[in-house]
Amino acid sequence: MAVTEIERDAMRRALSLATRGPRGLNPQVGAVILSPAGEILAEGWHRGAGTPHAEVDALSKLTPDATRGAIAVVTLEPCNHTGRTGPCAQALIDAGVARVVYALDDPGDQSSGGSDRLRAAGVDVVAGEQSEQAHELIADWLTVQQRGRPHVTVKWAQSLDGRAAASDGTSQWITGPDARADVHRRRAEADAIVVGTGTVLADDPALTARDGEALRPQQPVPVVIGARPIPADAAVHRHPHSPLFYDTHDLAEVLTDLGERGVQRIFVEGGPTLASAFIAAGFADTVLAYIAPVLLGGDRLALTDIGVATIGDARRLQVDEWVPLGADLLAIAHPVSPPEGS
Amino acid sequence: MAVTEIERDAMRRALSLATRGPRGLNPQVGAVILSPAGEILAEGWHRGAGTPHAEVDALSKLTPDATRGAIAVVTLEPCNHTGRTGPCAQALIDAGVARVVYALDDPGDQSSGGSDRLRAAGVDVVAGEQSEQAHELIADWLTVQQRGRPHVTVKWAQSLDGRAAASDGTSQWITGPDARADVHRRRAEADAIVVGTGTVLADDPALTARDGEALRPQQPVPVVIGARPIPADAAVHRHPHSPLFYDTHDLAEVLTDLGERGVQRIFVEGGPTLASAFIAAGFADTVLAYIAPVLLGGDRLALTDIGVATIGDARRLQVDEWVPLGADLLAIAHPVSPPEGS
Repeated sequence: MAVTEIERDAMRRALSLATRGPRGLNPQVGAVILSPAGEILAEGWHRGAGTPHAEVDALSKLTPDATRGAIAVVTLEPCNHTGRTGPCAQALIDAGVARVVYALDDPGDQSSGGSDRLRAAGVDVVAGEQSEQAHELIADWLTVQQRGRPHVTVKWAQSLDGRAAASDGTSQWITGPDARADVHRRRAEADAIVVGTGTVLADDPALTARDGEALRPQQPVPVVIGARPIPADAAVHRHPHSPLFYDTHDLAEVLTDLGERGVQRIFVEGGPTLASAFIAAGFADTVLAYIAPVLLGGDRLALTDIGVATIGDARRLQVDEWVPLGADLLAIAHPVSPPEGS
Repeated sequence: MAVTEIERDAMRRALSLATRGPRGLNPQVGAVILSPAGEILAEGWHRGAGTPHAEVDALSKLTPDATRGAIAVVTLEPCNHTGRTGPCAQALIDAGVARVVYALDDPGDQSSGGSDRLRAAGVDVVAGEQSEQAHELIADWLTVQQRGRPHVTVKWAQSLDGRAAASDGTSQWITGPDARADVHRRRAEADAIVVGTGTVLADDPALTARDGEALRPQQPVPVVIGARPIPADAAVHRHPHSPLFYDTHDLAEVLTDLGERGVQRIFVEGGPTLASAFIAAGFADTVLAYIAPVLLGGDRLALTDIGVATIGDARRLQVDEWVPLGADLLAIAHPVSPPEGS
């Protein structure tokens, strides 16, 4: 049976409910249980690893009688996997749900197959309703599933001629207020902000996402990579989130660990050495270069060595957008066929 | 008396005639002699230093009888100066011209005053007709008069991160075909193209302005700066114009000499050292940075040292335009208050 207008509305509601849950190890999922006549019986969403999945959360609010013959509208295919929670497909079957409408197929190897199980039990299943919106909602989580690591944005500010600072190390401010505000906006969209110990020692950054002077409601977890000790009174220790420290130069190891902590999206603002290391390793999924209309010359480069020996090995970028920000220009780009792990 | 429609047409014609003359030591000037009734009696233009000025050129085509009571329409104020030619103002008076319409006041210290002399002799003089177009026509010549040197455009191509080449020196091609075609178009607009001996030795450039493979009709004079000897079979020796060689690092000296040769506009394509020297000396009037969406890293920088020690000394640019050229981006900019001669 085709999706009804009531079910379509319920999916919109479920997508909205999903955002109440946290970004993290598990995807954000929302669910709405409708009576056979189309009334909303219950709503649910997933609150993070170890807590009930969205559809189970919704079912839990209803008596067994109420769910008999009901319609479940869920943003992700009900799982078929017994983990810290039982398989949702079975829970829906046990509850006597007659019909399931979901948006996105479960991409997990272990957890998929829920729709097959439902159909085998005689449940009417419709897939793909508002799948695009559902995909957008958990795109970062899906990236982590596919790549086994968080999405990496490498950001730097530079003079037109590619310098991060003048010869004496001074750099405040190469870019203007519009560019700096844009950075803070984007910091708030990341789960973690990553710098090297060199940057902490040189600049003592707060690593917060601010709106003017005020802290934004969403703050990325500060992550510091490197072996050098950080002063006890470093500003990063006053961040709303406890900083993570990685005494390693193995970026793959850092990314894997961050992924296992539920970090889906990281923002590398780490200074020239760290930015170059991420690019050299092929881990830069998005590049944000804030270009100021100023010439500096000298040897304080925004990028150092990225492992390109000859022009044929140049790291080609696809520029998705050149964004004017006051007098500055932001290049939003992604590498063309990044040589990951090379 | 106000300028008539016939005189206005004649000025448009005079501006067009002016372009027949060469760019060089003297400005391009055109003249049209009209009968009192408004018929075109003669046309003239200036063919370069040592030849008659435009109005004298036009008068020379007429018998003394024909010029009696005539109207002279000239793009530049008739001169009041006896140089290699006599003062044009007096020539017009002697010819019995009754009225002079001109576009632009003569900016020369020695040559101005022509309109006063004309008026004192009872000639009706109107100044300022189509002065904007006349100014545009000889803007480069006026710059040379004001600054005592040619207009300098410093051009380079760079990766997004400010490199001119990969670590091994390879650089063909960082930018794409659209950017390279744009360079050739702009070369043809310059009177001279300037490189360092290092670039000649490394790249053996033709220094011609081409349209595809074909030479463009206008070719800049090739200029090579530096002490190192150039091979006898270097491509620059096959340029349509004989190259000029300057065995010096004194850029002011080079610019003065080029200005004295009638060069109004130079295009510096000289490699990182020369580009940086022009910028450091404050001689860059226009900056053209062709930015390719590619990362290179390494130490082959498009600009080297430009004498900026601290961020407060940064050479701020005003970007007049960001021009997309295929996948590349051209920044057309000019320094904000260039510290000339500093």
